[in-house]
Amino acid sequence: MGRLQFHPSDAASMTSLAHFKVGVDNVIFSVDTTTNRLFVLLVLRQEPPFLGYWALPGTLVRQGESLEAAAYRTLAEKLQVQNLYLEQLYTFGAPEPDPGNGTGGDCVRYLSVSYFALVRYDDVHLLAMTDQPVAWHGVEDLPPLAFDHAQIVTYGHRRLCNKLEYSPVAFEVLPAQFTLNDLYQLYCTILGEQFSDYSNFRAKLLKLGFLADTGQKVSRGAGRPASLYRFDAEAFAPLKNKPLVFV
Amino acid sequence: MGRLQFHPSDAASMTSLAHFKVGVDNVIFSVDTTTNRLFVLLVLRQEPPFLGYWALPGTLVRQGESLEAAAYRTLAEKLQVQNLYLEQLYTFGAPEPDPGNGTGGDCVRYLSVSYFALVRYDDVHLLAMTDQPVAWHGVEDLPPLAFDHAQIVTYGHRRLCNKLEYSPVAFEVLPAQFTLNDLYQLYCTILGEQFSDYSNFRAKLLKLGFLADTGQKVSRGAGRPASLYRFDAEAFAPLKNKPLVFV
Repeated sequence: MGRLQFHPSDAASMTSLAHFKVGVDNVIFSVDTTTNRLFVLLVLRQEPPFLGYWALPGTLVRQGESLEAAAYRTLAEKLQVQNLYLEQLYTFGAPEPDPGNGTGGDCVRYLSVSYFALVRYDDVHLLAMTDQPVAWHGVEDLPPLAFDHAQIVTYGHRRLCNKLEYSPVAFEVLPAQFTLNDLYQLYCTILGEQFSDYSNFRAKLLKLGFLADTGQKVSRGAGRPASLYRFDAEAFAPLKNKPLVFV
Repeated sequence: MGRLQFHPSDAASMTSLAHFKVGVDNVIFSVDTTTNRLFVLLVLRQEPPFLGYWALPGTLVRQGESLEAAAYRTLAEKLQVQNLYLEQLYTFGAPEPDPGNGTGGDCVRYLSVSYFALVRYDDVHLLAMTDQPVAWHGVEDLPPLAFDHAQIVTYGHRRLCNKLEYSPVAFEVLPAQFTLNDLYQLYCTILGEQFSDYSNFRAKLLKLGFLADTGQKVSRGAGRPASLYRFDAEAFAPLKNKPLVFV
């Protein structure tokens, strides 16, 4: 798209154009619903720069390869997961400061197209790689990250909150049956505890009309048994393309 | 960001990487509230490929130039407008089919980062350029566009609808005082007539509590004089970071 906005023979302007390599970086979130922690997938760098730092799993785009294909390729080397759907997040491409070594701005620039997904924790199987360790890290307690990856994680977390507020993405990571408290805890884990109190949240979600009581109950701890609900996709269908808030 | 994901001396993998030029394409929307038409800004191409076709205003990124700077640069040549705020839309970068001329995948690829804005129609002054005509075109009645720009316009229109549903962007393009019917017409122009009936729309917007009746009325046509409202930014402030739907 937008390729060749100029005449190819316009050599004068060609020479002043930047040359790019393009990378993809993936922000893969998951929630461990047993411990209520939000995780992001990181790999440990085995090479300079940032040797020994954790980084988002990424790669550079190869000849003949689409951006999405590169993003899926690098993830396939690190994890097995069902129904991984990557969504484009943002493209970062600021020029690096002139290194002052006389090469001026003529060197190759790197541009990063970031992708984003939320996956069900139990559906993911991390692949043991001898050459590059891969692990989940708590978003609230990240180690120093390579490059500007901390900023990309922050951007991705904001997008995730947004999706939780405006779409039924929560039901893609909860088990098929869940209590209203499970659902509330998931929202708290991602949005932070102050987003809503439980009774408001409960009333609002039930009013939307797509949570179906299964008739079953579950006992946990000392309290009364809690009702198990399921997401009723059929009841949600007519709302699918309407603007809606979930919290 | 994400630059140098590999060791620079890893020459074997370097050779298979794609080489890119990066372009920016701008989807600038405006609404003529007197005729209720949604417009997008186009330029007439004076060079091959797509000589004589209309296209989104775009350019290729120069050495030392950020993506945003390139987007603003190419617009500054074509229009004067107050408070232009460009938002990143999407990055398109599929490899082109192998031309079959023996160059294989080794030629330069083009990647397009698209930007998006909605501007107030009366605030825009198009600059007369002898070398490249620039004009507003009705989104419902676009000519054939160069490259894949029709697809980018469609994508931008979807984002615009989304913003109208979830944010107070409408008040940035309406005059400071407006009737509820003016507001409804603006929504109809962008979302299509079927998004809501007038009385539902009216009730919902008034209930949100940030439309202030100015006490003034305006007469148009044969009907009763209609109340003029203004957007009350102070009343909206506490809602600003809450998930909210406007329609």
